Amino acid sequence: MAETAKPDLFVGVDLGGTKILAGVFNSQLKLLQSAKLSTKSSRGFDAIVDRVARCVRDAVDEADMNLKQVRAIGIGAPGAVDPETGEVIFAPNLQWKEAPLKKELEKQLEIPVFVENDGNACALGVHELELKGRSRSLLGIFLGTGVGGGIIIDGKVYRGFNGAAGEIGHMVLQVGGPKCGCGNNGCFEALASRTALFREIQQRVKGGEKTILTDMLGSELNDLKSGDLRKAVRKGDKLVEKVIESAAEYTGIAVANLLNILNPETVVLGGGVIDALQDEMMSIIIETAMDYAMPGTVKGIEIVASKLGDNAGITGGAVLARQRFK
Amino acid sequence: MAETAKPDLFVGVDLGGTKILAGVFNSQLKLLQSAKLSTKSSRGFDAIVDRVARCVRDAVDEADMNLKQVRAIGIGAPGAVDPETGEVIFAPNLQWKEAPLKKELEKQLEIPVFVENDGNACALGVHELELKGRSRSLLGIFLGTGVGGGIIIDGKVYRGFNGAAGEIGHMVLQVGGPKCGCGNNGCFEALASRTALFREIQQRVKGGEKTILTDMLGSELNDLKSGDLRKAVRKGDKLVEKVIESAAEYTGIAVANLLNILNPETVVLGGGVIDALQDEMMSIIIETAMDYAMPGTVKGIEIVASKLGDNAGITGGAVLARQRFK
Repeated sequence: MAETAKPDLFVGVDLGGTKILAGVFNSQLKLLQSAKLSTKSSRGFDAIVDRVARCVRDAVDEADMNLKQVRAIGIGAPGAVDPETGEVIFAPNLQWKEAPLKKELEKQLEIPVFVENDGNACALGVHELELKGRSRSLLGIFLGTGVGGGIIIDGKVYRGFNGAAGEIGHMVLQVGGPKCGCGNNGCFEALASRTALFREIQQRVKGGEKTILTDMLGSELNDLKSGDLRKAVRKGDKLVEKVIESAAEYTGIAVANLLNILNPETVVLGGGVIDALQDEMMSIIIETAMDYAMPGTVKGIEIVASKLGDNAGITGGAVLARQRFK
Repeated sequence: MAETAKPDLFVGVDLGGTKILAGVFNSQLKLLQSAKLSTKSSRGFDAIVDRVARCVRDAVDEADMNLKQVRAIGIGAPGAVDPETGEVIFAPNLQWKEAPLKKELEKQLEIPVFVENDGNACALGVHELELKGRSRSLLGIFLGTGVGGGIIIDGKVYRGFNGAAGEIGHMVLQVGGPKCGCGNNGCFEALASRTALFREIQQRVKGGEKTILTDMLGSELNDLKSGDLRKAVRKGDKLVEKVIESAAEYTGIAVANLLNILNPETVVLGGGVIDALQDEMMSIIIETAMDYAMPGTVKGIEIVASKLGDNAGITGGAVLARQRFK
């Protein structure tokens, strides 16, 4: 029996502080299958590299494919990255410094690995697959557990001097505002991430305000998810509505700041929070951004929500893998 | 008698909301002479173009040179600019929209004119002449009546989609903070420009706080200048010291935001406020910026004060004129 030609594959990996997501893509960058593992970041660098490798193998197996078909792997990592050496220079959520991610993963999998900052990878995925490369300059803003960003200038990822550009989550919007995980106060991330939304709701509940979330989840609100906020607000919950509106306004001001600084052609918002609360947040974000941005910066630009949702990172990883693999 | 060879000249113009400064430079970009005129912005576009032309002629005359020796003129204008057509798209301080500055000025002077945003022009001047082009990415922050900015990426001015990038003065740092001239609240410009410093001092004096500035200038403090603040603080004036420290801290937070977003190799601070108060402000700015910036962004970068002072704009204009003139 003649052997069937085995298609070339690319794997995109989204390495986060809490979970690893790996996606197997064909050479047209269609997603075939994906797999998920928790990161277990406290176990240290070697263990995490093992888990990334396992997650890649799992995804390939889910797709009924063979690891030998994978031409390259692209990874988005949560920190500053040297795209040449594939070293993660600094990743606070993983407690990594100068971690040789590319080198160790290539040793385990014997496949070329390319590493990029996670925000950049997401922006790359949106730019190449969702917008088909038609925007010359793009700013990606991803609201999840934290707030990530990625900047595309002249069609290429903009990394800055130390590979650390696009850390928009730690742009201070409110000097003296709520404490951020980074140690500063009033960062965009401390005002509009999922973490910020949940903390604000929990504090208000402790302060005696009422929400149907406590009927849904109990008074501690331990297992709160972005989807619960959507359910609550659609049932007319005023507390949740106020908190979401406030986060959307802060996000709009952040977008305006970035429009004034970078004047990109396209702003794309994504991540779990936008994915769950797009209908509630996007119109407020756009209205606030247009109100705060200088008139010169907004003519002909667009501000849109990404449709890639949680798959933006693996998509970007696959784009990276295909771009860099020659 | 044999005729002496007449050297080629380039003229740089800094067109501001209140004054026009023109500088005559030789082909090595050494400043020979300069001239100054008030802008009289209320008189409208044609009158301002006449005044720019007059200021150029005055500067050339001051240098004992002839207008025929001027090969090109470079102008920094306070707004969004189309560098190809030389049109000023939007300049709120001049109340201009789609103003054909290049075209009209070339008609009057019969010399090629190139137009750039003023913050970009200043950044270009600092990058080319002060740093000798050695930094690949530079962010210029200019604190004067307002706050201007200019971004150099890969050795070139970064303009963004509408030519309006670098409007860092309207980055909101303090949602709900003091009113800004742009209509928003809590902009960098409303917290650290000369206008902001003066307003804060005047309000505190009205509120009963004491300063030796009132002995120097009378209780209305009408003719306050940046240099007066320097004199006061050097005489131990606590009110002025506090206000300057606060502005320096806000500036440091703004620098950190921009480091996190753009991760440039070099940040240069300039403009009249920095020129007058460099010794009082720079160490606080740098310390605050380093404190707020993400660790990944600051390794090997430098934050410095420009030595070009008020001449940054005309220097940048001359650099632009020489670059674009072929």
